[in-house]
Amino acid sequence: MAIHKKNERLISLAQRGRVIFLALAVTCIVTCSLSSWAQSNDAIPYPAGYRQWTHVKSTIIGPKSPAYEKIGGIQHIYANEKGMEGYRTGRFPEGSILVYDFLKTEDDAYSEGRTNEGARRFTSVMVKDSKRYAATGGWGFEEFRGDSQTDRMIGAEAPTKCYACHTSQKDRDYVFSAFRK
Amino acid sequence: MAIHKKNERLISLAQRGRVIFLALAVTCIVTCSLSSWAQSNDAIPYPAGYRQWTHVKSTIIGPKSPAYEKIGGIQHIYANEKGMEGYRTGRFPEGSILVYDFLKTEDDAYSEGRTNEGARRFTSVMVKDSKRYAATGGWGFEEFRGDSQTDRMIGAEAPTKCYACHTSQKDRDYVFSAFRK
Repeated sequence: MAIHKKNERLISLAQRGRVIFLALAVTCIVTCSLSSWAQSNDAIPYPAGYRQWTHVKSTIIGPKSPAYEKIGGIQHIYANEKGMEGYRTGRFPEGSILVYDFLKTEDDAYSEGRTNEGARRFTSVMVKDSKRYAATGGWGFEEFRGDSQTDRMIGAEAPTKCYACHTSQKDRDYVFSAFRK
Repeated sequence: MAIHKKNERLISLAQRGRVIFLALAVTCIVTCSLSSWAQSNDAIPYPAGYRQWTHVKSTIIGPKSPAYEKIGGIQHIYANEKGMEGYRTGRFPEGSILVYDFLKTEDDAYSEGRTNEGARRFTSVMVKDSKRYAATGGWGFEEFRGDSQTDRMIGAEAPTKCYACHTSQKDRDYVFSAFRK
């Protein structure tokens, strides 16, 4: 009888352990799936092929700028075809992608007063998806470090690091730039 | 008889005059046609739509450059699809067009140290047509003043104003620039 009770208790413990293990496993799988789901849906994709898109305009940040240390150099903006439609019409359609490419500059070694493009600091991206990025004006924001297509510098900080400033351009669909002919 | 002779002479003079007039007229028509032919065949066409072509690279010419007065500012190079094939392979196919766009720059009125693109100085063009421009390495050279699509600054002076310098790049199919990734 005592042995029987002991066995029952052991079986009971084993069953409880199995239940807990299963519960943990399910929790883990669900969590991981949700995590992948969030990653695949929210992460801004690298704007592959943007160097063949239309060159919108360029700017230069010189040594006198307080932002020189961080972004000094030459900057180019590129847009895909939908982005160009946005510049023309004032409303950027779903799928518009704007790229702001930040490069360092280097003095030319042979030609006095001539400056060349240097290493890439980072590539800043805006993607229009009104549903997915409803919280930030319909735009997703991201920055890719250096030449990396995976090293994301913004992630969940888009609302404070990007959108907070772009809200000033709400009347222009949150876009600062204009196409320079 | 005298009257007859006089009439004969008058008719002869009239005929000679008509022949001379016809000869002059034909000469004029042929000359004008050759002139139009030369114009339509040799004049480098304005590179319509180049602002939508691929942006190859950019340079800056600052106040320390001896060429600042003439070309100071920011310069962008663009290439059509055949031109891009040339950058990839090292040999530019027939129909390649490269555009070197010279813009002035302006200090930003609100942001210290920031420089913006200004007015267009001129748009420099290279067109690959080995037969037509055989005398200048197979490339036709032209520059369009300001935003004009018809005010040509080079014309017949391409051999001295453009090609003379580009010959140094014969091994690179006479092209100085390279695509910046």
